[in-house]
Amino acid sequence: MKTGFIGLGHMGSAMAANLIKAGHEVIVFNRSAQKRRELVQLGAKEASCIADACEAQTVITMLADDSAVSAVTFARSGILESLPRDAIHISMSTISVALARKLTQAHTEVGQRVVSAPVFGRPDMAAAAKLFIVTAGDPATLAACKPLFDAIGQKTLSIGTEPAAANLVKLSGNFLSASLIEALGETLALVGKAGLDQQTVVDILTSTIFPVPAYKTYGGLIASRKFEPAAFASPLGFKDIRLTLAAAEALGVPMPLGSLLHDRFLRLLAQEGGDRLDWAALGALAGQDARLEPNSQAVPSSIHP
Amino acid sequence: MKTGFIGLGHMGSAMAANLIKAGHEVIVFNRSAQKRRELVQLGAKEASCIADACEAQTVITMLADDSAVSAVTFARSGILESLPRDAIHISMSTISVALARKLTQAHTEVGQRVVSAPVFGRPDMAAAAKLFIVTAGDPATLAACKPLFDAIGQKTLSIGTEPAAANLVKLSGNFLSASLIEALGETLALVGKAGLDQQTVVDILTSTIFPVPAYKTYGGLIASRKFEPAAFASPLGFKDIRLTLAAAEALGVPMPLGSLLHDRFLRLLAQEGGDRLDWAALGALAGQDARLEPNSQAVPSSIHP
Amino acid sequence: MKTGFIGLGHMGSAMAANLIKAGHEVIVFNRSAQKRRELVQLGAKEASCIADACEAQTVITMLADDSAVSAVTFARSGILESLPRDAIHISMSTISVALARKLTQAHTEVGQRVVSAPVFGRPDMAAAAKLFIVTAGDPATLAACKPLFDAIGQKTLSIGTEPAAANLVKLSGNFLSASLIEALGETLALVGKAGLDQQTVVDILTSTIFPVPAYKTYGGLIASRKFEPAAFASPLGFKDIRLTLAAAEALGVPMPLGSLLHDRFLRLLAQEGGDRLDWAALGALAGQDARLEPNSQAVPSSIHP
Amino acid sequence: MKTGFIGLGHMGSAMAANLIKAGHEVIVFNRSAQKRRELVQLGAKEASCIADACEAQTVITMLADDSAVSAVTFARSGILESLPRDAIHISMSTISVALARKLTQAHTEVGQRVVSAPVFGRPDMAAAAKLFIVTAGDPATLAACKPLFDAIGQKTLSIGTEPAAANLVKLSGNFLSASLIEALGETLALVGKAGLDQQTVVDILTSTIFPVPAYKTYGGLIASRKFEPAAFASPLGFKDIRLTLAAAEALGVPMPLGSLLHDRFLRLLAQEGGDRLDWAALGALAGQDARLEPNSQAVPSSIHP
Repeated sequence: MKTGFIGLGHMGSAMAANLIKAGHEVIVFNRSAQKRRELVQLGAKEASCIADACEAQTVITMLADDSAVSAVTFARSGILESLPRDAIHISMSTISVALARKLTQAHTEVGQRVVSAPVFGRPDMAAAAKLFIVTAGDPATLAACKPLFDAIGQKTLSIGTEPAAANLVKLSGNFLSASLIEALGETLALVGKAGLDQQTVVDILTSTIFPVPAYKTYGGLIASRKFEPAAFASPLGFKDIRLTLAAAEALGVPMPLGSLLHDRFLRLLAQEGGDRLDWAALGALAGQDARLEPNSQAVPSSIHP
Repeated sequence: MKTGFIGLGHMGSAMAANLIKAGHEVIVFNRSAQKRRELVQLGAKEASCIADACEAQTVITMLADDSAVSAVTFARSGILESLPRDAIHISMSTISVALARKLTQAHTEVGQRVVSAPVFGRPDMAAAAKLFIVTAGDPATLAACKPLFDAIGQKTLSIGTEPAAANLVKLSGNFLSASLIEALGETLALVGKAGLDQQTVVDILTSTIFPVPAYKTYGGLIASRKFEPAAFASPLGFKDIRLTLAAAEALGVPMPLGSLLHDRFLRLLAQEGGDRLDWAALGALAGQDARLEPNSQAVPSSIHP
Repeated sequence: MKTGFIGLGHMGSAMAANLIKAGHEVIVFNRSAQKRRELVQLGAKEASCIADACEAQTVITMLADDSAVSAVTFARSGILESLPRDAIHISMSTISVALARKLTQAHTEVGQRVVSAPVFGRPDMAAAAKLFIVTAGDPATLAACKPLFDAIGQKTLSIGTEPAAANLVKLSGNFLSASLIEALGETLALVGKAGLDQQTVVDILTSTIFPVPAYKTYGGLIASRKFEPAAFASPLGFKDIRLTLAAAEALGVPMPLGSLLHDRFLRLLAQEGGDRLDWAALGALAGQDARLEPNSQAVPSSIHP
Repeated sequence: MKTGFIGLGHMGSAMAANLIKAGHEVIVFNRSAQKRRELVQLGAKEASCIADACEAQTVITMLADDSAVSAVTFARSGILESLPRDAIHISMSTISVALARKLTQAHTEVGQRVVSAPVFGRPDMAAAAKLFIVTAGDPATLAACKPLFDAIGQKTLSIGTEPAAANLVKLSGNFLSASLIEALGETLALVGKAGLDQQTVVDILTSTIFPVPAYKTYGGLIASRKFEPAAFASPLGFKDIRLTLAAAEALGVPMPLGSLLHDRFLRLLAQEGGDRLDWAALGALAGQDARLEPNSQAVPSSIHP
């Protein structure tokens, strides 16, 4: 298939590359020409403006946040103005429920089509074409996009016909991930201050009741205090918790754990350099509060007090 | 091997049965004679008092809480008085770090041995001999107990030489489980009030980023609101959060998510019949706060507001 | 002085009446003509549109929220278009820091003046001309407004030259009030479930360490469960906590107690009829969680358990 | 009247001195002989052991915590063994509801009398005989103690016939005070990071809606960051929140604000030297989270961002 692709960050460039490898014809656009050129070397066609990326029957957006997606969509000569009638905007960014609705309404009004297809997975999974894709939209439209999804992900699951539903599920997943970072952070502060080796505890828990990459990855990052370079930067994590809470507020759903995460992120980002850290650094705050020292784990076989 | 076994609740009776099936000679004791008789039919020898269960080189305790373990251990004619010198008390209950230490000191002083070996797994896993066992204690002592562990669990992992360390890891695991119940509860209140089908969302999340029994089990229970009969009753869950927070307080570790869980449990248990519910019912409180109606999920393909 | 007055709700109508009683010439405007007429009977001149209320050298706005203040200010033929050069917009509503800044910039650009002068006090204090007024703005401009403030309040205090500062202080005060409602709610749930008479406890606390109207008023409302009619309705309280948290988020200040209040309000408003209740009803949620029964206070002289 | 007085800390020594000044005959006991001697110089009689302090018809205990009160009461040759039949133990310490009940039962069983009479007020109020005394117990017994209360406090209020009720009210008051410290801490972090002068904001709030010493004192301490020397040390504040939460847990009352305070105290006490600080230092944690710098308040007339 031929498709436009807008947004060549960590995730987007890996996804575009996989589309090319799978034989699709990809017209890439990114504000930074440097990023475009890397994809061109892989076989992409380069678009010099958004309109150029909208000449195919589909255009994928994979951008950082609501404001970036709004900008490329609603700007003069943006997607809304440039996309052919009946063509499909495949919105893969993690955006708000409210913006997803606005996109749906705007595209529908001008006879274009739109689906939401946000993804789960960190950059290494994007590179391996192992993303999970959650989709929502008109079934026929989703079916038309299937070859693209197959090139990017290991599994595609649908949550109904209204595009915004997929965005809400994506936000829910990120809320669950942030929740487990906090839970692991408190756990590891506890066992660490007791003198146990944090990594050993992570190993025990993830080889028994939580044998799943999320716990292994975040547990390992917290135990080793390696938060740079960020695979998923804390400002992006904060954004997602804010979008989750915005959706919850609009629906009248109190989320006290969500509020705790919100406040933890605010604190993390207030720290010098906090915005450069992986969002797993959220899990280090419990240790800070407990004045857990790195070397307090010197005697792993004895626990205090 | 020959071993005493004290405590024949949901978990203990399944574990004792598996020991018998594996060919071990098991002397069972439980306050309720009825429970003992069921095991005797499987081949156990019946002890009429605690001392009778202490005639072998090992005695296992698998009881509900600190006070039960304290009672059988420290009472007149209890384990401490009855166990032979060098014999091993295998403490498998989920008890406090403080009591684990007290057991260690008391047994050591009279020349007995003690290891902690709490287990992860719900009753169905106990029945299938698929428990995970976390051990701590003297390596030679643990090695001596290995045939028993092998008959009960699918995997045994050690966290060092001090018995209380295993109890802390067990509490940490239960804290993580309660945390994910809360996180799932908030998530499902959110997507449910948006009109999505909760079970479909659980299916999506557990077939992508959280492909692990804990998320499937608790997500399914919350989505279906089936909290009776309890596989793990809420008072036991509350007990474990209290023990976790007690250990954290003693170590100077603030656990705000732990505090949230504590308050959720208090509220759950204040509800009529709350003590009969599975601890997964914790995950229904977020829906209560949001006034989520069971039938608010009538139109799964459209999300509000 | 002659002044326009826009916004004749519970607070505004009492304030406008006091201006008239003090001899000022007041031109009132409200969307509801009924409200205007009541003031006209007291001696006000009636404006049939916003522009009519802007013919004097000052115009006061006392409206429910940001959107109402934005509407009357920025609409076609609104305050910004109608107010003479050098005339003063006295912004007395409880609005966001962000809107206060926007007003300042907009008025300044067209040569008008603006001060913030939000008030503390419930409707009975407004009626008695006993409000507290917190002001910020150019000192000479504030001095020019002093006769108006004197007719409305018992005390006027300034927090500097930037109008938005007064709005932040006002939000801070409301945050403190909501905090004490929560604190009292938890306290009274505790003593109530112990069997003590809640009002007696309120009397003791407010005749000793907290001899201040806020504790007496809210304590009494919670003890008596009288939340209707609302002197300050819960949606307005929620609005103020949201504005406080918005300012805090913009400044990078985590406010965990603020988040707790936010979630409490969401829950209160999700209850049927919650939006009709006084914000003191926030203080009833702790009792709900504890399953405190109204008649559980039957034996005030004996405490349980 | 003649009375024994056990416990000569900051509060107790000031109270005992006022009893002497009012003409009462006071027999003082304290573990530290130095403390006793200071009172002897004022006219007290010195007891060399607890029994000596129990020769009168009343004995007052004013000690730091449950364990100190338990020790002097239940130890061999302690109050319970030494006090004459019908004599009165006036328990003025801030102790748990559970211990208050235990004292009541123990004294009653041996024909002694007991009342609870905890006090509100910091050391300066104790020195000025301006304490507030909350009492509970048999009315005739309380009447007999009235001359002593009159010499110590400015007001005495009763909450019924069961001594433990007064202890619960005292804990409630301290919970309210800790709550306002947290609320003020978050408020001052917010206005401080906005560039406003914190003390000016405290002045505005306490000369309007919160004209009460608690807000002035704690607001001033937080604004000036003067937490040493402690008038009420943070470990004592932590103790009171723990006792409040213990009573709440026993009664099935979730107190989320109480849990927040609990975690804040744990964090404060984990900091180096945290135990030497006044409990007002709890109010500095919000500023820490926000990375509020002392000099960020350099330009009080302009607010950020």
